[in-house]
Amino acid sequence: MSQLNIYNTLTRKKEKFEPINPPFVGMYVCGPTVYGDAHLGHARAAITFDIVYRYLKYLGFKVRYVSNITDVGHLENDADEGEDKIQKKARLEEVEPMEVVQHFTIRYHDNMARLNVIRPSIEPHASGHIPEQIELVEKIFENGYAYESNGSVYFDVLKYNKDHNYGKLSGRKIEELYETTRKLEGQQEKRNSFDFALWKKADEKHLMRWNSKWSNGYPGWHLECSAMGMKYLGKQFDIHGGGIDLQFPHHESEIAQSVAAYGSEPVKYWMHNNLITINGQKMSKSLNNFITLYELFSGENSLLKKEYSPMTVRFFILQAHYRSPLDFSNDALLAAEKGLQRLIAALETSEKLKTSEKSTVDIKKIINSAFDALNDDFNTPIFISFLFEAVKMINFIRIGNETITQFDLEELKKFLNASVFEILGFKNEKSSDTDNLKLSSDLINLILNIRLDAKKNKDFATSDLIRNKLTELGIVIKDTKEGFEWDIN
Amino acid sequence: MSQLNIYNTLTRKKEKFEPINPPFVGMYVCGPTVYGDAHLGHARAAITFDIVYRYLKYLGFKVRYVSNITDVGHLENDADEGEDKIQKKARLEEVEPMEVVQHFTIRYHDNMARLNVIRPSIEPHASGHIPEQIELVEKIFENGYAYESNGSVYFDVLKYNKDHNYGKLSGRKIEELYETTRKLEGQQEKRNSFDFALWKKADEKHLMRWNSKWSNGYPGWHLECSAMGMKYLGKQFDIHGGGIDLQFPHHESEIAQSVAAYGSEPVKYWMHNNLITINGQKMSKSLNNFITLYELFSGENSLLKKEYSPMTVRFFILQAHYRSPLDFSNDALLAAEKGLQRLIAALETSEKLKTSEKSTVDIKKIINSAFDALNDDFNTPIFISFLFEAVKMINFIRIGNETITQFDLEELKKFLNASVFEILGFKNEKSSDTDNLKLSSDLINLILNIRLDAKKNKDFATSDLIRNKLTELGIVIKDTKEGFEWDIN
Repeated sequence: MSQLNIYNTLTRKKEKFEPINPPFVGMYVCGPTVYGDAHLGHARAAITFDIVYRYLKYLGFKVRYVSNITDVGHLENDADEGEDKIQKKARLEEVEPMEVVQHFTIRYHDNMARLNVIRPSIEPHASGHIPEQIELVEKIFENGYAYESNGSVYFDVLKYNKDHNYGKLSGRKIEELYETTRKLEGQQEKRNSFDFALWKKADEKHLMRWNSKWSNGYPGWHLECSAMGMKYLGKQFDIHGGGIDLQFPHHESEIAQSVAAYGSEPVKYWMHNNLITINGQKMSKSLNNFITLYELFSGENSLLKKEYSPMTVRFFILQAHYRSPLDFSNDALLAAEKGLQRLIAALETSEKLKTSEKSTVDIKKIINSAFDALNDDFNTPIFISFLFEAVKMINFIRIGNETITQFDLEELKKFLNASVFEILGFKNEKSSDTDNLKLSSDLINLILNIRLDAKKNKDFATSDLIRNKLTELGIVIKDTKEGFEWDIN
Repeated sequence: MSQLNIYNTLTRKKEKFEPINPPFVGMYVCGPTVYGDAHLGHARAAITFDIVYRYLKYLGFKVRYVSNITDVGHLENDADEGEDKIQKKARLEEVEPMEVVQHFTIRYHDNMARLNVIRPSIEPHASGHIPEQIELVEKIFENGYAYESNGSVYFDVLKYNKDHNYGKLSGRKIEELYETTRKLEGQQEKRNSFDFALWKKADEKHLMRWNSKWSNGYPGWHLECSAMGMKYLGKQFDIHGGGIDLQFPHHESEIAQSVAAYGSEPVKYWMHNNLITINGQKMSKSLNNFITLYELFSGENSLLKKEYSPMTVRFFILQAHYRSPLDFSNDALLAAEKGLQRLIAALETSEKLKTSEKSTVDIKKIINSAFDALNDDFNTPIFISFLFEAVKMINFIRIGNETITQFDLEELKKFLNASVFEILGFKNEKSSDTDNLKLSSDLINLILNIRLDAKKNKDFATSDLIRNKLTELGIVIKDTKEGFEWDIN
């Protein structure tokens, strides 16, 4: 069987996965800034790395999976300017910032639970790691890669780039950065526009603030992931993941911070998931094409034709490779819904198949090909296509066009159950509740139609018997001109 | 109508509740140390203050409810000795302490969600507030109420007691403390055995540690609540709650810390819930009579006759006043189960009552008496007894012994729904799923008996029609000698 290969953004190629201290694997993934409800983009990142987590565990690795909750320091324009996103929300809602954090963290976890995303091993909060962040700034400062300016501390990108390579992850060049980073008001504190804040002095309005030797202030956004990754996974760990939009400046700066502080590359494999577009357009608040997960699950957004279940959303996301762009459309979601139904139905069929003396199907080939796909940088769409090969096979066996032995059938069922539930993380959503209610209704209508016939045939004994028995079961019958109405008491 | 009165442990009497800044109320309740599963004791504290939170909101107050998660500094013997409880668990399980915290925090929240306990507005972690705790120690130090000893910092109880009153909450006297606090090994650092740690220097084995001017160490257990209460609710706030076992030394020391640092009483109303005993004995790990909530809900503990639903546990707890001891027994739980069923059944009956021109019942009196009980220091058992007065009334009206007007009935239903769901926080646990399945089965049996009769009467048209219709609905019928068997496909 093939071995796991991961596409490493840092080297721009697929590499054999060899953890630093097997069987242990340390994985860090950038989590949400909790100032609003999670949307499709959050779902894609969480599900992408949920698959990585699940599959590594399936392969027998002992994974410590750390994913942060950003609750301070993430400013509006993602760099060093604008109001803190959480503080702004708190100001608008007239609550304390940590109430905003609590509210949206609970909702985020609720969304992820519905999507059947496993909770990471540790979910550290940025505001809960101020000493660790200050210590990291001090270290960078000591090593000469930071400067203080008016109570704030900035990372000296130019100085760092002389000794190391700022841009190694994202492929950006310092020369370009001169042109692409804007010189904004208040940036006179920086030596260069692309320098980034490690520590920001708080202005009067700022609520979330702590003392440091430089000022009463708060950490820069890029700092938390370096500090918390290091704290819980060590100075060097295996996998760092996040959305492709975080490659620059966030992850580029994380590398720079670690190297500047400790001289060593912090991460062996950098993984980035691609983004989700909405009907071909970038998802953004200004374009008003923002779909939250709650809206998807309830259907309450004018862009949605209907509601889509969490497992449909999960299937939709996994039908694309995580490094490919993925476009939301109602048609794609409807197709995902059908696809998942077919897959689950085949699993049920597999439980009832008759076995034969001989297999005319090649189970091993499907299984090996499927895992080859997963080992090829977590290629879930190809993996799923092999599951559908198995679905086809099951249906052929059911109608007798193919045969399977008991042994092969057990192998096939084991493979399908592990793939669908354990690795891809689906759960059976069919509500027995709704099903039973529907069945009861159908049965009541059937009985009352029999009673109607009996009455027409003047068989009043039967007609009365049915009425009495249904009444006993708590069903209230009302005879009408057209026939009947009923209600469950 | 009466006004809310709260028993204040500090003054040892019931006082009219008058918040410092109405309509705002600040409430802090000591939360769990997350190194094991929550048990009945945790449920009692959480439900007690959930009722306070719910009722204050019902009365129109804007409540900020803060409850901490203790994830560092809580040592084994609750004072200043022994291993950190979380670190010990991490050592035994061979994981990182924060993985223990994540695991048991998730399970705690799951338990509380099942008990329908509303999540507090903010749930701060002790490890996430190290700078705030260090700052508080510095303040106490500056004011002369702390001393350093070998890198640790202790609160100088004797010095504090000269200027203030250490013991005002718990009623303990310094003279007694000389006798009741043990002089243990390692305590030579303290001037007096009843001094408590504000900051502890970490020994080599200690994993959770931070730098401070005194040493690389960790905060004392009592410190976090003072620091976090102050941070999120201000230097003076309205209500501080917790189990009666926390009165001394934990809450006594919290008061001392705040007064020593800022000279002002931190809390206006101190509330303490009493404990739960198991068949008359104190619940303790050594007596092996420890019942976790998961065990209660599943029945998997030899002390349990059966499983008890979360709402049964909630009802059991609310049937006692929070300041009274409460003894667990299977009989008490079984009685609670029945009681809650009667209450919920009456609510359903109230929806179907016939109204009259005149009321022979006095709704207003019941409602007023019920709220009088709640306003009398949250007397839920008396409150619930008035709900049962209403239940009796409903049943009398149903059988025609009493009558009620449309207006009164609406008032009564409004009162009952608010009381049962909004204030007491019950939810209807009856699974519509099971109900519907039972109904479907009954209906299928009914139809197949009709078919059996038709066959006996040689009415094969009807008999076949029924078979075909049921088959269409996915019901597989097997005719047997005795009659029939069926299965849902």
